[in-house]
Amino acid sequence: MRDFILASVATAAALFAGHADAVAVNPLPKPSSITWGTSGAFSVGELTLSAPDHKVLSEGFARATEAIKTLNWVPQATEAPMRSLDPFPSPTGAASRRKRQYATPGNATGSLTTVTVEVEDTRATLQHGVDESYTLEIAAGSDSVEIKAKTVYGALHAFTTFQQIVISDNSGGFLVEQPVSIKDAPLYPVRGIMIDSGRNFISKGKINEQIDGMALSKLNVLHWHIIDSQSWALEIHAYPDMTEDAYSTREIYSQADVKEIVEYAAARGVRVIPEIDMPGHASSGWGQIDKSLLTCQDSWWSNDVWAKHTAVEPTPGQLDILNNKTYEVTGKVYKEVAGLFPDNWFHIGGDELFANCNNFSSLAREFFAKGNSMGDLYQYWVDHAIPNFRAQANKTFIMWEDVKLSTAVAASGQVPTNIVLQAWNNGLEHISNLTRDGYRVIVSSSDFMYLDCGFGGWVGNDARYNVMTNPNATDGAPNFNWGAGGGSWCAPYKTWQRIYDFDFTQGLTAAQKSLVMGAIAPLWSEQVDDAVISSKMWPRAAALAELVWSGNRDANGNKRTTELTQRILNFREYLVASGVGAAPLMPKFCLQHPHECDLNANQTVLHTGPVV
Amino acid sequence: MRDFILASVATAAALFAGHADAVAVNPLPKPSSITWGTSGAFSVGELTLSAPDHKVLSEGFARATEAIKTLNWVPQATEAPMRSLDPFPSPTGAASRRKRQYATPGNATGSLTTVTVEVEDTRATLQHGVDESYTLEIAAGSDSVEIKAKTVYGALHAFTTFQQIVISDNSGGFLVEQPVSIKDAPLYPVRGIMIDSGRNFISKGKINEQIDGMALSKLNVLHWHIIDSQSWALEIHAYPDMTEDAYSTREIYSQADVKEIVEYAAARGVRVIPEIDMPGHASSGWGQIDKSLLTCQDSWWSNDVWAKHTAVEPTPGQLDILNNKTYEVTGKVYKEVAGLFPDNWFHIGGDELFANCNNFSSLAREFFAKGNSMGDLYQYWVDHAIPNFRAQANKTFIMWEDVKLSTAVAASGQVPTNIVLQAWNNGLEHISNLTRDGYRVIVSSSDFMYLDCGFGGWVGNDARYNVMTNPNATDGAPNFNWGAGGGSWCAPYKTWQRIYDFDFTQGLTAAQKSLVMGAIAPLWSEQVDDAVISSKMWPRAAALAELVWSGNRDANGNKRTTELTQRILNFREYLVASGVGAAPLMPKFCLQHPHECDLNANQTVLHTGPVV
Repeated sequence: MRDFILASVATAAALFAGHADAVAVNPLPKPSSITWGTSGAFSVGELTLSAPDHKVLSEGFARATEAIKTLNWVPQATEAPMRSLDPFPSPTGAASRRKRQYATPGNATGSLTTVTVEVEDTRATLQHGVDESYTLEIAAGSDSVEIKAKTVYGALHAFTTFQQIVISDNSGGFLVEQPVSIKDAPLYPVRGIMIDSGRNFISKGKINEQIDGMALSKLNVLHWHIIDSQSWALEIHAYPDMTEDAYSTREIYSQADVKEIVEYAAARGVRVIPEIDMPGHASSGWGQIDKSLLTCQDSWWSNDVWAKHTAVEPTPGQLDILNNKTYEVTGKVYKEVAGLFPDNWFHIGGDELFANCNNFSSLAREFFAKGNSMGDLYQYWVDHAIPNFRAQANKTFIMWEDVKLSTAVAASGQVPTNIVLQAWNNGLEHISNLTRDGYRVIVSSSDFMYLDCGFGGWVGNDARYNVMTNPNATDGAPNFNWGAGGGSWCAPYKTWQRIYDFDFTQGLTAAQKSLVMGAIAPLWSEQVDDAVISSKMWPRAAALAELVWSGNRDANGNKRTTELTQRILNFREYLVASGVGAAPLMPKFCLQHPHECDLNANQTVLHTGPVV
Repeated sequence: MRDFILASVATAAALFAGHADAVAVNPLPKPSSITWGTSGAFSVGELTLSAPDHKVLSEGFARATEAIKTLNWVPQATEAPMRSLDPFPSPTGAASRRKRQYATPGNATGSLTTVTVEVEDTRATLQHGVDESYTLEIAAGSDSVEIKAKTVYGALHAFTTFQQIVISDNSGGFLVEQPVSIKDAPLYPVRGIMIDSGRNFISKGKINEQIDGMALSKLNVLHWHIIDSQSWALEIHAYPDMTEDAYSTREIYSQADVKEIVEYAAARGVRVIPEIDMPGHASSGWGQIDKSLLTCQDSWWSNDVWAKHTAVEPTPGQLDILNNKTYEVTGKVYKEVAGLFPDNWFHIGGDELFANCNNFSSLAREFFAKGNSMGDLYQYWVDHAIPNFRAQANKTFIMWEDVKLSTAVAASGQVPTNIVLQAWNNGLEHISNLTRDGYRVIVSSSDFMYLDCGFGGWVGNDARYNVMTNPNATDGAPNFNWGAGGGSWCAPYKTWQRIYDFDFTQGLTAAQKSLVMGAIAPLWSEQVDDAVISSKMWPRAAALAELVWSGNRDANGNKRTTELTQRILNFREYLVASGVGAAPLMPKFCLQHPHECDLNANQTVLHTGPVV
């Protein structure tokens, strides 16, 4: 008999689920395997760490135990079936609305005092493919948590799992359900989010806040799109004038700042992969070195006269691919940035070249006049820039898929297959095409994972909003201001359900699947800065985190999106309590009343839903 | 000759506009009339207030001068024509990218030392129709700002205008352009936003933050949708158990909290109009008094089986209209809440009744069995509740338009025309219909002003997201996950341009126009709590603020949305500096480079755009 019912007066938590589930809280992402016993909860005392001497371990353990103490966490409600509701219409037998319960801790019969950590290889470094698996065991009646991991980074994941399964006993102490056995490892080695600090500056503190959320949700790659046409905020010693194109002297990343961010991330098991987007999306910074490095940077972007458009968005600018000095300068910048980031992977951009932009370069006009295409020009970049970069510092390069798949401007010849390509257009189709051609792929499909979609258009002077009555009032067909995108090119907003539902390897052969490295959810920052980055990123990035850690299906192969509901609602509260400003997904009523805010009463509707 | 160029090193402001404009900054909302002279800027010294003895004035003045001192404000760039860009394609004559300028203050020849305020009627209270007009004059060479207003609330607006036109001289002092003459008054007496603290709790601090934004943008009505089906957070002495349905003991508004909020708002010229939504959207709170007051509160909301749907969203519940005790209880609650809020207007809800919900009431089933309709039932509510409320405390009532216009459940007989109706459906059509029938109208059209639209669906267990490939890939027609609403019933997201462009009196007769009281932008809170309320509200609410203060057209009758661009971009920065967590609208590049982020180079495109 287990008669403890837990609730925190502080959070007025309503624990409606069965007693066992009240303690056997599930962490997010759901582990590959978690098995709870039935012998009852243990109290958790002052915990001692027994582990190899390693800073990552001691600091990670300190963070986890500090979080346990300061958050005094109790989930509002854990996963449970919907309560019984009145049939329609029914004059009798009303089900009871749940009341808040203020209960006391139960009869825990033991106490946890030690966390023992074994790590096979304490010298493994945080690089692509580092083993992140771990096991966590609390044997029946044991006073010790046994954590085993191949590397310290697996052990870090064990700590974040542990801090999520220990909860407050509501009277100053803590409880953990035991026995418990967890065997856990990620499905994919690349699990990340992308921050864009080119369109608007993101402060160091806010970047670290994203890293906090990543560590808690076991994401391990921060793809940092540092610069873009609009601003250059990164200190470069070789070319100190580049930061003249920062938005202000206060909106600059010094190299000391970068070092701090990289170290903060590494301590939490997060790799930071920098992106210097070239040869497109280039204006700020480069122009401070030499105007001749650029083309079309002072043109009108001309979305209004498409035949003359020079960029996908303001402000235009591309590196002049045929200017020899371009390679000297980009090589030096690459080398310096590569030295700042210890990760062996480096993102060199490559998206959204516009042929028209090159018309502003006399060199390109000559090149085209000889019968060469924009694809040939891009191939020239690939053939010259990549060997040049590799000579400076040999890393694994990531490029946006455009270099291979853009209909207008893909490189015309050979793109080395040792380049990792980031797929962002056309969902499954492009993932399939790229892996078919032998490329390793990072999935960032805009139709599922772009976190900046759905906020309307951000460019001004747009007459399309100036419409007073619905032109399709009769048939209700979606149009610009009624039911459609409202100016957002990738509308609608990607909800946590949409992200989690994405079966991004569907239809691939086993060989193709083996080339899918994982997924990164981008948050482009035209409408993002410190004020909103955390609420646009979280908790949606946590849906991605579970998708790439343990998948979106249960043991029977059914989509478990509905089961994720309660987990992600609780995790959002956990993020906020941990200082990550995540957005609410539903009324708090829904968090407190499992599944009463479902669209369908049928809890298996996603098992049979369309998977076209 | 005026040779001052201002820029703040602290903000690294780039002041690209003409020198005069660099100081003659425009406040938002744009005043009805503002005329700058050309004799040059004055420095602003320690300011002394000369005004009638009134707490609202002395406190408002203290806030304005404190803001001037602490913000050290300099706009990044004021309105200016787009810089000259290269023609397409052009190998020569590149325009220069703007560089940051670090300049020093100019030769100001005078100093401002006194703010003189004249108020005709210092006893006017903050109620509907209070005169909010003011004039602000700095005569050429004068050391005094002369403010004249009919009431202290007009003077408050003068103060917020004043604090926005004084800027830092970048060396510890302040400057204001002079001479200047402002004559200003609002177009509409009701200018507001709506907060919903029923779906998620909004803390007192965050409510006050919204009030700060309102005061700065001259909004004067906070419509507070306090409760809803999901929670009841308002302390009611008559029925103390109602707050058992708050989300937690910490998520409750004590009556002392309410008093503080009302006073905070009143000191800033903001009326707080409470809404207790009845007889629909009713479950939490009421059920703690007596279950028999409610019907269908324990039903499945049943959007999945539409024939049985009982509510527009979880959780269901309506007051049982035919239960006599309903009037006793709602009367007492109304009376107590009416006493808490000094405003003479009170919102009694009335939206979204569902006939099916009444099937759970035996009284209603009998009523229907006698041949009565849902409209008759709603009429019963109108005929009984309104006189009952009026007997407790005679106020002007606001109701949602549903009581008159809902196709399914509008009251079947007479709705008193002294009730103000809030229009939220069908844009211009409903505004026209309601004013045609003689009702005063508050415009809250969801197609233009609902700030919660576009964030996808919030209900769970929704198989519609589980679609991997675009079913309309061939023709590109918008569908659920591609280009359409993605689950948001009122998608798309309403951008600042969409809000500002709304000509909400278009097509009305003069008599009808006189019945339009103004507009309120609602922010429903299914996906809103403290974490996101400010970024979802601001700066979009400021676009509404100018729309209802001085309109959306220039002196020639042309839409001035494009002119608003630079003003609202600067105002967003001003809000953030003032502690209101407003969202960024564009890359900061756009703020620093006027009109380079326009969609159309043609700056008059909105003059001739479609106004259907």
